[in-house]
Amino acid sequence: MKKQKPTILVVNDDGITAPGIKALINVMKELGRVVVVAPDSPQSGMGHAITIGKPLRLDQVEIYADTEMYRCSGTPADCVKMAKSIIFKGSKPDLCVSGINHGLNNSINVLYSGTLSAAVEGAIEGIPSIGFSLDDYTLQANFEPCLKYIKNIAEQVLTNGLPPATLLNVNFPNKADLKGVKICRQAHAKWAEEFDERVDPHGRPYYWLTGVFELNDNGEDTDVWALENNYVSVVPVQFDMTAHHAIPLLNNWVFTN
Amino acid sequence: MKKQKPTILVVNDDGITAPGIKALINVMKELGRVVVVAPDSPQSGMGHAITIGKPLRLDQVEIYADTEMYRCSGTPADCVKMAKSIIFKGSKPDLCVSGINHGLNNSINVLYSGTLSAAVEGAIEGIPSIGFSLDDYTLQANFEPCLKYIKNIAEQVLTNGLPPATLLNVNFPNKADLKGVKICRQAHAKWAEEFDERVDPHGRPYYWLTGVFELNDNGEDTDVWALENNYVSVVPVQFDMTAHHAIPLLNNWVFTN
Repeated sequence: MKKQKPTILVVNDDGITAPGIKALINVMKELGRVVVVAPDSPQSGMGHAITIGKPLRLDQVEIYADTEMYRCSGTPADCVKMAKSIIFKGSKPDLCVSGINHGLNNSINVLYSGTLSAAVEGAIEGIPSIGFSLDDYTLQANFEPCLKYIKNIAEQVLTNGLPPATLLNVNFPNKADLKGVKICRQAHAKWAEEFDERVDPHGRPYYWLTGVFELNDNGEDTDVWALENNYVSVVPVQFDMTAHHAIPLLNNWVFTN
Repeated sequence: MKKQKPTILVVNDDGITAPGIKALINVMKELGRVVVVAPDSPQSGMGHAITIGKPLRLDQVEIYADTEMYRCSGTPADCVKMAKSIIFKGSKPDLCVSGINHGLNNSINVLYSGTLSAAVEGAIEGIPSIGFSLDDYTLQANFEPCLKYIKNIAEQVLTNGLPPATLLNVNFPNKADLKGVKICRQAHAKWAEEFDERVDPHGRPYYWLTGVFELNDNGEDTDVWALENNYVSVVPVQFDMTAHHAIPLLNNWVFTN
């Protein structure tokens, strides 16, 4: 760990008043100076959305004692961008942590998750970044069993750094007796959507997105396997989305000129 | 190509009335049966957002003659999910094309782009998918030079398919004299944000996101290089975000139990 007290940016996607961010703030205060920038409303499922078509607000607020906090009218990725440009003014925090999300962000959920996208945005900015999520969607979620792992993982990232252009996606099963940490890969899976069709009072249909998680992966090296077996899953995530292995194949195609 | 006329899902992020989707619809009509599902309003920068906290609308509309079209109140990724579940009812289109976007989606923009995220969503569903974007943000963009390439690339994907869990990100320079297609990797780059601070009529500050594209990559195998040299860039994209190369390193860390 650095000799100076590290500066830690805390963000989330459930909004600045979510219990999960409060739990994360309290752990991070044991490690350094904390600055919180979080959405003013829940932003679950926002993925890596950024706000282009309308302006943003950023206001300092007092919620928890002795905590520097800002609420942002934008998305989780906007929070990181505004923190960097407006609060840190180009200097970089030593760590960016996102969460603790109320609900899992394992496997394919990394794409849909505002929590993870905030951490991806941190990593794009060259800040060592980690997303934390617990398998409990309720506001009554018990984060207590996660806290010692979160502190340990954050300490290790502060000490060792992370490989370039890489962040960590950490998920916790909703269990008291966690068996430790497993380094994993993202399981192959998707959501099988089922839209719940209803009719409004004016006779027009509307649809709620629902779905069933469909696992297509029997590997024992995946985050899904680790979570099912009571481990904390840690997936290193990159934001180079190039399918490098497909380049030679495509080079054999004959394109028009 | 299949003997039966293929079914082609057309989506975008600029909204169902954008000139870019009209151009794409017209090319796809030469190749098969077209079904359009597009957002009812512009959704640029929505990334892979999906709509969880509120219900969605999906209404069939008549805009262009002899074209099956639906406007969706959600994000580009929602459009693909609704098309699959409600319109195709579990059967799959043979191809999903997204665009033509008004503006580039090369390099790191793949993460922020609604256009590309719609194509990613198609690929997650096992549909061969392609995102198309032109380097012109205006509504007056001239898509004409792109059209023969779009037709050719779509034909090849219909004929050859794509490797599993892979889609194509195709970008066009805004030039009349295109030099052909280059298969590329995503260039390492980021946006250096500058928030434009203004004051509203009530004396409160607000911020517009602006930024400068910052290239950190001298490779001649990148999409940025190809576009600067008047080539059509084609990047194969995957949605496994695991940084597989970082797993051995993390396995050397000692975690708490």
